[in-house]
Amino acid sequence: MKLVDHKILRSKTESVLKKYGSNEFSAKSVSKGLVETSLRGVDSHGIRLLPHYLNALRNGRINGEPKFKINNKYQALIGLDADNAFGHAAGYKSIEIGMKIAEEFGIAAISVMNSSHPGAMASFSLEAARKGFCSFSFTHADSLIQSFRGKNPFFGTNPICFAAPRKNEEPFCVDMAPTFIPWNKVLQSREKKIPLESNVAVDNNGIPTENPFNAQSLIGIGNYKGFALAAMVEVLCSTMSGMPFGPHISSMYKSSIKEKRKLGQFYLVFKNDINVDNEYFQETLEKMTNELRNQEPAQVGEKVLMPNDPQIITSKERVKEGIPIMDNVYDLLFEK
Amino acid sequence: MKLVDHKILRSKTESVLKKYGSNEFSAKSVSKGLVETSLRGVDSHGIRLLPHYLNALRNGRINGEPKFKINNKYQALIGLDADNAFGHAAGYKSIEIGMKIAEEFGIAAISVMNSSHPGAMASFSLEAARKGFCSFSFTHADSLIQSFRGKNPFFGTNPICFAAPRKNEEPFCVDMAPTFIPWNKVLQSREKKIPLESNVAVDNNGIPTENPFNAQSLIGIGNYKGFALAAMVEVLCSTMSGMPFGPHISSMYKSSIKEKRKLGQFYLVFKNDINVDNEYFQETLEKMTNELRNQEPAQVGEKVLMPNDPQIITSKERVKEGIPIMDNVYDLLFEK
Repeated sequence: MKLVDHKILRSKTESVLKKYGSNEFSAKSVSKGLVETSLRGVDSHGIRLLPHYLNALRNGRINGEPKFKINNKYQALIGLDADNAFGHAAGYKSIEIGMKIAEEFGIAAISVMNSSHPGAMASFSLEAARKGFCSFSFTHADSLIQSFRGKNPFFGTNPICFAAPRKNEEPFCVDMAPTFIPWNKVLQSREKKIPLESNVAVDNNGIPTENPFNAQSLIGIGNYKGFALAAMVEVLCSTMSGMPFGPHISSMYKSSIKEKRKLGQFYLVFKNDINVDNEYFQETLEKMTNELRNQEPAQVGEKVLMPNDPQIITSKERVKEGIPIMDNVYDLLFEK
Repeated sequence: MKLVDHKILRSKTESVLKKYGSNEFSAKSVSKGLVETSLRGVDSHGIRLLPHYLNALRNGRINGEPKFKINNKYQALIGLDADNAFGHAAGYKSIEIGMKIAEEFGIAAISVMNSSHPGAMASFSLEAARKGFCSFSFTHADSLIQSFRGKNPFFGTNPICFAAPRKNEEPFCVDMAPTFIPWNKVLQSREKKIPLESNVAVDNNGIPTENPFNAQSLIGIGNYKGFALAAMVEVLCSTMSGMPFGPHISSMYKSSIKEKRKLGQFYLVFKNDINVDNEYFQETLEKMTNELRNQEPAQVGEKVLMPNDPQIITSKERVKEGIPIMDNVYDLLFEK
């Protein structure tokens, strides 16, 4: 594990992506998304994934030079055919389109087809929120959450992400899978050979296991509620986009690296100044944030936190100290 | 407890609401919302609430003859000042506006201010979905979910609801609070003098309790994740609408019944025919549903269910057998 300055990491990542055949927009999108995600401490979805992405790019799963096709049959509901682009490129493109339309109509929805794994959805909603918009970002993913009353998984650990602009600091942001842990945490536990927490994953009999090598699917938060959220996101991302659903989605790691993922995503971007003005919105959100942070903790010495507070704290630390990256990623980026 | 036919119950409820000063639209909205919610087996948010609503209406908390004011500064993001209407009236009005706009622009968002308790959010999203639209419905509510690492509640048990049209049967629907149980379940347990499940509620020290009379707040699903969802919905409903947030919201039961609730809601209504056509969308959703239902269960004899399946089953039973209503509600409706 080495520590690397985030700016250097971003520029190096961009160069490597270009070397392997990404165009400017794709390389900028992926490097921005991965490095910012690592900066925020979400290592499972950060720079760790670069070798996998490069492999997918070289083998034709991902198109580094996509020709985006826009369907603007409706003025505020847009279809985006991402032409098998990096999910990050499709995501930033959606937000770019969404902000332009929301500026005029108040809101925009973008249904994306022929996309791929987009990393952490916070990358996209934060992009919109930093420019003053509220935003939802959804993606579906490999079949991995245990179905309610089921033995096996059907839907993916489909995340929900929402961000909103806030005065004087980083946006409010929620970005969560409807499971206790993301599947990438299982992979990290396998890499590190450390056990999982109890009651977060089940084996192929649907029985909870702490052995990451036996884990077959993940337990949803609040049981049927986490499962229900995964189902909801599946409808938004696959039924809406025309892409395959649940068990029919090609796997990130198990399918051939030549196979296109055919993932769908769904984005919403909207203005905040309809019942209040932007200044009031941002000030009130800041006030709510500070009031919550000053609440009495259950345990002496702890602190009540808003969603995104841990990521904001880690981000500040890593801007100073650098981002920890694994040797295989380091070698890939800094090899002579 | 008596069983009453749902059509009779709806018509009686409508009459009583009119008798106490509701206009036609308000009376129809509340009776439809409450009776349908009871029909679906969601008793905590159903006809049980009628005496409370009538009390609120008689005492001026709720305006039975609201003058809705529409802010259409943007073409697809609408502000609705509900003039202290029943939440149900504001909700159905939002969906009505939303469908009209979505038909033209593809999507509509409605930020509602000066509203009240809307019952189950499924009432509104199902209304849109039955007419072929996808829809999200959000409301905030009394401060009742324990904050992450906090001793006390700050945000409400703010629900997330989404529905989408499905071929040959009732729409797909998710309607859930980000807690294991809704607060109304605590009130029901108090009424029935039965204990709560373990680890669903905490007392005023932030310690889990099974005694409904000691319960002060509810535990979020997945701990910080449920709390994060509540925070997200709070931003959509209060920061967006200009209404008070979290602990500043007047309480449904503890505040004076003369006090206006000043709640906000947020609705999204959108078309499904951008990357696919409506027929494909509805067929694919039906196919996904049936494929999931045929998955292998973890326990022999059980069945894997889609969200909304339990409500669809209960609904069919209650259409035949009638809706169970408590004596106080029966007397109110059928008194000579």
